[in-house]
Amino acid sequence: MKKRIMMWLMCLCCMKVNAHSKDPDAFHVGILLFDGAQAIDFVGPVEVFGQAGFRLTTVSKDGAEITTAMGLKVTPDQRLEPAMKFDAVLIPGGSINGRLIEDPVIQNWIMAQSQSAHYVMSVCNGAFILANTGLLDGLYATTIEKAFDSFARQYPAVKLARDKKFTDNGKVLTTAGLSSGIDGALSLVAKVNGMRSARTVAAKIEYDWVPSGGYIRGKMADRVLPEFDTLPTGVTLMAKTFHYGDEQNWFQGHVFDVGVKQPSRLSSWLDQQMKNAGWQAVSSDNTLAWSKQLGEQQWLLHVSVSHLQGTQFSTQLTLNRQI
Amino acid sequence: MKKRIMMWLMCLCCMKVNAHSKDPDAFHVGILLFDGAQAIDFVGPVEVFGQAGFRLTTVSKDGAEITTAMGLKVTPDQRLEPAMKFDAVLIPGGSINGRLIEDPVIQNWIMAQSQSAHYVMSVCNGAFILANTGLLDGLYATTIEKAFDSFARQYPAVKLARDKKFTDNGKVLTTAGLSSGIDGALSLVAKVNGMRSARTVAAKIEYDWVPSGGYIRGKMADRVLPEFDTLPTGVTLMAKTFHYGDEQNWFQGHVFDVGVKQPSRLSSWLDQQMKNAGWQAVSSDNTLAWSKQLGEQQWLLHVSVSHLQGTQFSTQLTLNRQI
Repeated sequence: MKKRIMMWLMCLCCMKVNAHSKDPDAFHVGILLFDGAQAIDFVGPVEVFGQAGFRLTTVSKDGAEITTAMGLKVTPDQRLEPAMKFDAVLIPGGSINGRLIEDPVIQNWIMAQSQSAHYVMSVCNGAFILANTGLLDGLYATTIEKAFDSFARQYPAVKLARDKKFTDNGKVLTTAGLSSGIDGALSLVAKVNGMRSARTVAAKIEYDWVPSGGYIRGKMADRVLPEFDTLPTGVTLMAKTFHYGDEQNWFQGHVFDVGVKQPSRLSSWLDQQMKNAGWQAVSSDNTLAWSKQLGEQQWLLHVSVSHLQGTQFSTQLTLNRQI
Repeated sequence: MKKRIMMWLMCLCCMKVNAHSKDPDAFHVGILLFDGAQAIDFVGPVEVFGQAGFRLTTVSKDGAEITTAMGLKVTPDQRLEPAMKFDAVLIPGGSINGRLIEDPVIQNWIMAQSQSAHYVMSVCNGAFILANTGLLDGLYATTIEKAFDSFARQYPAVKLARDKKFTDNGKVLTTAGLSSGIDGALSLVAKVNGMRSARTVAAKIEYDWVPSGGYIRGKMADRVLPEFDTLPTGVTLMAKTFHYGDEQNWFQGHVFDVGVKQPSRLSSWLDQQMKNAGWQAVSSDNTLAWSKQLGEQQWLLHVSVSHLQGTQFSTQLTLNRQI
């Protein structure tokens, strides 16, 4: 029995993990929650801020339980109150829609907080919620890579930074998509408590933090790839199986059901898609290849088509930057 | 008005973020929750598994709302039921104690699940909960770096891997601390759905995944540093300000209040601490330096002491591996 109690005490000592501060004088972050919020967008920063000794309060429009995009049910600490005063406000992204982005209660709350808070930071497509207040106008912002074009269309007054994991306009900050919130939160800790504190937090959470940016999805080659979002009648996109690589080269796979057993149907449609997107066919005997000049870069895209089964074919796109 | 509706529709299209599967046939992961669970330990994997199209169910002993170590209030989907069958079970860490580790309801549930599930994975010090079932006996395991020694003492039958972000024993898997759960979950997706799928998920969450390991806290030089956990009477550790570096070199700072205005008190105590830990003093005129052979490596530690204010002094430890 004595041995068991000793083991318990040992555990209690060694297991102590730093928790967030309850000190009313600690740097206080308000975290906006809403139905469909992406869990990693706010939990990454919550972990970082908590380890930095910040005080944390989660808030939502009505204070009721929310369900995250991944199904986690989280109960906020409070409902939105204009009288609340935070040192920083965090706005995550997720399954957002126009109703949420334009909600006057949320918009007014963010604007009121921005008057008194030192920092307002969005994560992922939370940038849309923040941009709609006008607080990002004339400033640099980033968001999840796949929302770049739509963000640029909707908020032409915002300077979209497609190659940054984190934008720092002094008071108003944004981060790239999903796990980038961890990097953004570490950068904010560095602003508040200094780089040593931020590095300590990164080491504590065993995170490989590259303060100057690290892996940036928006810098990857695939952002020059055509989207293939308008399919011909009878063709179905079954799966977008993989895409990875680095800034210079990128691989992407699709599975199409073309309705017939002939790959030529897919090939001729691909050829039309590429022409529509401004790519020039490169003569080649065995493979489909196109090239395109984008900015100062020349890109080369090879596509191979394989028969999977029945009327299903897979494509593998290989994109290379010509140096 | 038309323009506004169009903007909404645009948002709805572009904002769609992949959510977890509700398909009853999808690969199904049961996520154990408990009061004091570390949010990042389970939310990192939840995001990864959800993006991979897995089905997710959170469970706790009684199904009641839990409060994470960082204060988030999460309501599990269900209480523990032995009859539940999952394809994989995830055991996070956090502010765990002996009562939790030895809880027969939780222990029996894990053992019952391990009979039917393909995989059982712990994150961070969740390894203690898993090890206590005996399921890790004879297998390789890792945990949060600061719990290595206590884990080795408590579970001598487990092969502790101090230099791995993820251990894969086939069915029973473990990950290193906190954010390492993201890496571990990606490795599990690779086992279930293949490497291409795992890389796709990593790209989707904009995470810089290094499948072969990446940043491993337990490989860092500071694990050879003495802990300074027994202080002389009158000396107080005010802060452990920073520690970062790579495998070969490491910096660590402390602030001590030594009760008197003489740094010699700190220096002589440090000297005694280092001797007790088996380090040999290296002759030097201006700095405190010690060396030690650990395994095949020779380490050199320099300590500089600076006066901060009053009776407070700071120390900076610089540790280098001699090549």
